[in-house]
Amino acid sequence: MSEPHPTIDADDIGSWSREADVVVVGLGCAGAAATLEAAGHEAEVVALERASGGGGTSANSGGVIYLGGGTAVQRECGFEDSPEEMFKYLMAASGPAPDEEKIRRFSEDSVAHYEWFVRHGVPFKAVFYPHYSGEPPTDDGLVYSGSENAYPFNQIARPAPRGHVPQVPGQAGGLLMQTLLAAVDESPAEVVTDAHCRQLVVDRNDGVVGVVARIDGAEHAIRARGGVVLCAGGFVNNKRMVERHAPELMQCKYRVGTTFDDGSGIRLGMAAGGETIHMNHGSISLPIVPPKSLQRGILVNGQGARFINEDAYFGRIGEHAVYRQDGRAFLVLDAETFERPEVERDIAGVGETVEELEAELGLPQGSLQSTLSLYNRHAEKGEDPMFHKGPDYVVPLSHPPYGALDCTTANSLYAVFTLGGLRTSPDGEVLTPDGDAIAGLYAAGRTTSGIAAPGYASGVSIGDGTFFGRRAGRHAARRR
Amino acid sequence: MSEPHPTIDADDIGSWSREADVVVVGLGCAGAAATLEAAGHEAEVVALERASGGGGTSANSGGVIYLGGGTAVQRECGFEDSPEEMFKYLMAASGPAPDEEKIRRFSEDSVAHYEWFVRHGVPFKAVFYPHYSGEPPTDDGLVYSGSENAYPFNQIARPAPRGHVPQVPGQAGGLLMQTLLAAVDESPAEVVTDAHCRQLVVDRNDGVVGVVARIDGAEHAIRARGGVVLCAGGFVNNKRMVERHAPELMQCKYRVGTTFDDGSGIRLGMAAGGETIHMNHGSISLPIVPPKSLQRGILVNGQGARFINEDAYFGRIGEHAVYRQDGRAFLVLDAETFERPEVERDIAGVGETVEELEAELGLPQGSLQSTLSLYNRHAEKGEDPMFHKGPDYVVPLSHPPYGALDCTTANSLYAVFTLGGLRTSPDGEVLTPDGDAIAGLYAAGRTTSGIAAPGYASGVSIGDGTFFGRRAGRHAARRR
Repeated sequence: MSEPHPTIDADDIGSWSREADVVVVGLGCAGAAATLEAAGHEAEVVALERASGGGGTSANSGGVIYLGGGTAVQRECGFEDSPEEMFKYLMAASGPAPDEEKIRRFSEDSVAHYEWFVRHGVPFKAVFYPHYSGEPPTDDGLVYSGSENAYPFNQIARPAPRGHVPQVPGQAGGLLMQTLLAAVDESPAEVVTDAHCRQLVVDRNDGVVGVVARIDGAEHAIRARGGVVLCAGGFVNNKRMVERHAPELMQCKYRVGTTFDDGSGIRLGMAAGGETIHMNHGSISLPIVPPKSLQRGILVNGQGARFINEDAYFGRIGEHAVYRQDGRAFLVLDAETFERPEVERDIAGVGETVEELEAELGLPQGSLQSTLSLYNRHAEKGEDPMFHKGPDYVVPLSHPPYGALDCTTANSLYAVFTLGGLRTSPDGEVLTPDGDAIAGLYAAGRTTSGIAAPGYASGVSIGDGTFFGRRAGRHAARRR
Repeated sequence: MSEPHPTIDADDIGSWSREADVVVVGLGCAGAAATLEAAGHEAEVVALERASGGGGTSANSGGVIYLGGGTAVQRECGFEDSPEEMFKYLMAASGPAPDEEKIRRFSEDSVAHYEWFVRHGVPFKAVFYPHYSGEPPTDDGLVYSGSENAYPFNQIARPAPRGHVPQVPGQAGGLLMQTLLAAVDESPAEVVTDAHCRQLVVDRNDGVVGVVARIDGAEHAIRARGGVVLCAGGFVNNKRMVERHAPELMQCKYRVGTTFDDGSGIRLGMAAGGETIHMNHGSISLPIVPPKSLQRGILVNGQGARFINEDAYFGRIGEHAVYRQDGRAFLVLDAETFERPEVERDIAGVGETVEELEAELGLPQGSLQSTLSLYNRHAEKGEDPMFHKGPDYVVPLSHPPYGALDCTTANSLYAVFTLGGLRTSPDGEVLTPDGDAIAGLYAAGRTTSGIAAPGYASGVSIGDGTFFGRRAGRHAARRR
């Protein structure tokens, strides 16, 4: 089944199969949020889901939600946070040109957004999980999910954990989406599954006025009085798009996404005149932890040089390894610091001496010896003036044998998804290159470029997907 | 004067001011090539130039043209080259996902393209200029203008200089464009200056069928029977677009472009449904040479570590410094290797010892000492196993005093222009996200993403601009 041209003129629609105020395309976390919010504002909503049930990539994710500014969970766990500190962190972490207005709203309204999840039945256990950044194996509700506690961010904003995790052991995305989808079921919104939105209907004067979707083998034109909200995921599983737009990600082995993360939502929006931004960026996780004690090792590149503080968030480490080090990285440990990593990882080399290890890793003669000697000299004093790793993880590596875990993209797990997509206003309106909103067209989630591309922290995708999904749903509902 | 919506429906055009087979928008090197080629294929051509005369950024450039495969100039200068070696170099240098089809054609037809320049009167003196990569101060006609002779590329393809420079001392872009514009003047094509193309006229069935341009204060609709060729430059002088699409470039001080490199051509193409690619990439020159002897120094980053072979092309060095080292770089020299750089550059620090210099540069204690000690150990044997700098430039740096030239983006010259733009077919057709050609719409030059983003070599922009400009002009002419 070939794809038709992604827009169709309203004049060419013979008759509408049905009408609604808001049509939501895709029912992952962003689409569920848009649906709930629009329905909550008395809009008649039709949500189209391409799979046989909602959930999308959100349901297969760790379920971490980036929330802060002083949520109940943060307070009960004894962490002080404020919208201003959250704002400062996200502004510092989110690349050279962060979206200040979006980050401001995301931070200022984060406590209210947390309460929205609670109101819809998402449970959070107010226990902080300290052993890992990212989704905990326990049902604990709060983790560090970015580099808040690592240099340079701990100098810029007061660190606070902001990864909020629904209460279930391990991967929590399933519970999150079950809960949100149950709320959708209870709402007046209509959900149509196995419905593939293939075209946006564009009226010359009124903008986007509906969609054409394939449902049960037939094309249905569905009119949207208020707007269409594209929440159809990213493009990590569209090989051609990745090759064209984010070629660095091709070297990463593990793609986080469903088969429907094929960029269809982005392409629909582009065809209607939407601009894309940050298309080259991805979330790239290189989990050198757990256990966190492995951060006592040093990460070196293909020249045996360090390139980052090893206690930075694994998303930041992955970005640096891929974009700056050509995917070449080894985690060097000694007999005292070695532990079996919980993420399966090959041993790239061992040696009775550093020189032996260096040779086994194929590093230039003297390079690793030089790096380690300098590192150890400072580590004797508990210092890391090169990259400012936190003192808890700074110990000399001087007990043979030495070994290195393989953290190259060629041989180890890098989990990626795309962060580029449609550019939107804080109300979720899809914008043209000239900055105008396209009437009737909204987007949220990974169909858009989120607030942290680059500089991803876990939970930001579900965080901004739901946050700006809600705003889009509300704006479209009011527009009807 | 605000900009109207960048497309207008053909039905809304009351009457056409005039008609032509091919309308070319912008008269830099790409537009001149498209104009000449279309006119040479018996098409009636109207070329619209926004300035009061043609030339654009090409006229203000060094005028280097990337050509090879065995041109007369290369042969007379004693260099052996072939399309296959040129292809191998460009494929290796042009990032993780080079455009193989375009690079293949660009390499295979390069000798013929060289002859096209000669036929149009561009003079080349068959003398190789060895002292510098980039435009020579003399009127010599051939230079290395990429990293052909540096690691790793000298291991992948047989090195040959491919920077062809029109015969005039210093900046040769003026002569190049005078010559091409004289040829345009002699052709039957009509040139309209002070003509600002503000809209593409789109017919629902026939695609792009013309333009609306502002000429002498009035809007004129010009019909294009064959096609419109957008050759309106890049977006380096559109601050918002740079911030949004290539934020890393904001830190670079010197922007190579006219005021009309404001992305208008790219935005016209996007509004008609064209896809953009490589928008984050720029050509970033950090000229640490001339004199070339300065390559005997070592470039270190903010952690006092080397990050590249210093004999790589200055465009490659600039890319690495900006994208990978946050714009922090110092060129470290000793008393024996120091020479005054020809590009004005501050001295960032001096010291009787390496330790003193290190402190003065604000580098972590021990870092530069460690880097230099390892470098010198290998350099004693004339080797550089870390980055494989060519042996001519590998000497121990051990004669005090030591000094460092400031190569940070904050304090030194980085010359940039944008390399992202519309995605086109090898015939210059503007492509949609789904890979379909937009009927009647073509683009070339920096309105498109060229063949070397990333991995720029000087001369590629004029090289691919004219090469694919010609192909676009020819294709549009045949389509009428």
